[in-house]
Amino acid sequence: MGIALLGYGTVGSEVLRLMTENSEALEHRIEGPFELKGVAVSDASKPREGVDPELITEDARSLVLRDDVDVVVEVIGGIDYPRELVLSALNAGKSVVTANKALVAAHADELAAAADANNVDLFYEAAVAAAIPVVNMLRRSLAGDQIRRISGIVNGTTNFILDAMDATGADYEAALAEATRLGYAEADPTADVEGHDAASKAAILASMGFYTRVRFSDVSCEGITGVTAEDIEAAKAAGDTIKLLAICEKITGEDGTVSVSARVHPTLVPREHPLASVSGSYNAVFVEAEGAGDLMFYGNGAGGAPTASAVLGDVVGAARNKYLGGHAPKDLTYADLPIADPGDVPTRYHIDLRVHDRVGVLADLARTCASRGISLRTVRQEEGYEVDGHEAARLILVTHTAREHDLADFVADLKAHDDVLAVKSVIRLAE
Amino acid sequence: MGIALLGYGTVGSEVLRLMTENSEALEHRIEGPFELKGVAVSDASKPREGVDPELITEDARSLVLRDDVDVVVEVIGGIDYPRELVLSALNAGKSVVTANKALVAAHADELAAAADANNVDLFYEAAVAAAIPVVNMLRRSLAGDQIRRISGIVNGTTNFILDAMDATGADYEAALAEATRLGYAEADPTADVEGHDAASKAAILASMGFYTRVRFSDVSCEGITGVTAEDIEAAKAAGDTIKLLAICEKITGEDGTVSVSARVHPTLVPREHPLASVSGSYNAVFVEAEGAGDLMFYGNGAGGAPTASAVLGDVVGAARNKYLGGHAPKDLTYADLPIADPGDVPTRYHIDLRVHDRVGVLADLARTCASRGISLRTVRQEEGYEVDGHEAARLILVTHTAREHDLADFVADLKAHDDVLAVKSVIRLAE
Repeated sequence: MGIALLGYGTVGSEVLRLMTENSEALEHRIEGPFELKGVAVSDASKPREGVDPELITEDARSLVLRDDVDVVVEVIGGIDYPRELVLSALNAGKSVVTANKALVAAHADELAAAADANNVDLFYEAAVAAAIPVVNMLRRSLAGDQIRRISGIVNGTTNFILDAMDATGADYEAALAEATRLGYAEADPTADVEGHDAASKAAILASMGFYTRVRFSDVSCEGITGVTAEDIEAAKAAGDTIKLLAICEKITGEDGTVSVSARVHPTLVPREHPLASVSGSYNAVFVEAEGAGDLMFYGNGAGGAPTASAVLGDVVGAARNKYLGGHAPKDLTYADLPIADPGDVPTRYHIDLRVHDRVGVLADLARTCASRGISLRTVRQEEGYEVDGHEAARLILVTHTAREHDLADFVADLKAHDDVLAVKSVIRLAE
Repeated sequence: MGIALLGYGTVGSEVLRLMTENSEALEHRIEGPFELKGVAVSDASKPREGVDPELITEDARSLVLRDDVDVVVEVIGGIDYPRELVLSALNAGKSVVTANKALVAAHADELAAAADANNVDLFYEAAVAAAIPVVNMLRRSLAGDQIRRISGIVNGTTNFILDAMDATGADYEAALAEATRLGYAEADPTADVEGHDAASKAAILASMGFYTRVRFSDVSCEGITGVTAEDIEAAKAAGDTIKLLAICEKITGEDGTVSVSARVHPTLVPREHPLASVSGSYNAVFVEAEGAGDLMFYGNGAGGAPTASAVLGDVVGAARNKYLGGHAPKDLTYADLPIADPGDVPTRYHIDLRVHDRVGVLADLARTCASRGISLRTVRQEEGYEVDGHEAARLILVTHTAREHDLADFVADLKAHDDVLAVKSVIRLAE
């Protein structure tokens, strides 16, 4: 069984380390021997520890086509170049293991079709929350169940930042700076803090959970850059914590159509919810299934060794199938549900307002509510604020469940309301 | 693909319900059609809802041998009768899915050998923590990693009782009565509260984690019947909670021998540890792996539907292999490590004492400690207690890590010590 490794960065080097250290277990699991045939890198002249120099090549295109290669491991990152290599490998009859969420979220259709056409496997456990085996869970363990909802903390950078804000009262900028200093945030943190990374994972999770192809572009996405220290404080006061959740669920629209919603946004999570205690850069995926009930998987969602661990689990799966026959559970898209209109999604809002501190303002706002068909679950009022020299009260409104578009219209009404001095924040609730 | 269902109780009826409701997804996952061929029950005259009466039979022995049956699902419970049926099915070339932890923990060797000899699958995901896919995780997802330690809350009854004691301050008897009233404890709760159920699961987890056959009888086991309201209170004061943990790890003995320890005992878990927040009757399995780092799986560890969900995941696996070729990852026991001497296990003790309230008692006890090579991490002293009319102080000693036999000797010394009026409790710490 010949293995080709594409990429020898943080993940690739850990793949090789674990592969070497755990070779006995791997051979027992694969039920046969395996051998690393080559490691493709962009600059072969760079010295690389832990790898036989004879295995190093810059020619990834030829490596994936070699006759003695059966399984190709792609841990390069990026989209276009790995896409070309992965397609070429699949079309040459090699099984592929990738840790590349951007690639899978963007081109799953094409890749899955190539794997099918060539009767080989495409594995990507490491692409979603690294070491957390959520792909195996959804494709195998819950194969006889029905998923209702998946909500996940699937980005470690943003969880680290929000957790730091919660623990220390720091504002967003300070917490981001700390995350950058400690290596939890990249120099350009955009993909993380704007929720794009989480959205890629949401697309993959929703696709698997609902047998429907959901693409990155189908995911509505709001990052954490707007979350303030005041929001965190208000969440705490309500017994909640704010997490950036990727939420995937089937919803029934006003016309009865069942569709799939995949979205990413800051979310108020009650302290007693299992997701609330996911701290630091950890990830967790919470699944509500019809039979199994509530399940949560928690672990390292990034990092060289955790990602490599997931990659090797897939390598074993791919190599076993090459030796023993059979193939991995496929991407299933037979349900082919429509993607939900984001405005149709049922949710609840936590709205933090500043209003003129005068008698009757609450009754007035209650009428605005009623006119939009929104009902309030709780209203909390605090005196003693000031906005632009006006005496103000703080109002925190928590709504009952309503459609996103009705809630958005309600917020627009609030912004236009004479008595409203400012809408400080709008955060959705987990349930 | 013909399925035979043995048993139609809480789990069996849910297996059939989910199988019927989710048949479309199941056929896609199996990649072919399937059909229920028969349901074996002990009394066929009893009316049973949701099942075609023509499928009901009392003759399980014949059902498992039928030519049109490919996969046998065993959800009867007990040991001897299901053992006979499962062996008969395996030897007739049928794959078997069982939810029976007692059967697997007692006869895994024999069953695995029969599956191997007949080149069929033996699946038992539901036998460990029901809906939590820990078997898949250990056998597939972590196949390229190295497990250091598995610690699990794998019995819902005892977790419910300990959680109730923690939440309400109730003593053990009151919490057990409440658990019984709510259906979380059986009329005879022995197997749960004495830790035997958890020990079966510990045996299975240790076997999978360390490629070594660990039997129920290899597991050292202490239940929760000795846990008092005072223990819970002391745990709280220290920022801990008490959980009944099944702990499986590789240890290195004083002579350098590497061996496997599997044990079940009440354990002090820090509040910030992910296992501490596992409430009610939920289960969770916490895995420390060399590459993946810390992982935790959380979910329903019992109940009809959660168990049935896990059973169906396995049915899909078994049926896929029958259609597509290949077989499930096997029980691997190649490492064949010795079972650790329980006295050799490194652990830490939390010891609650009553001592004579006199000057110098602490210095005296410190000498006892030193003579056994035990060092203390913390000592907490409270005045104002009384034992048999003597003025007493309460001492809470938390040791550093030492071997179990040294700690046990130390406790024996304490009990014999003139200044010690009572050793109220000894509880191990998680780490």
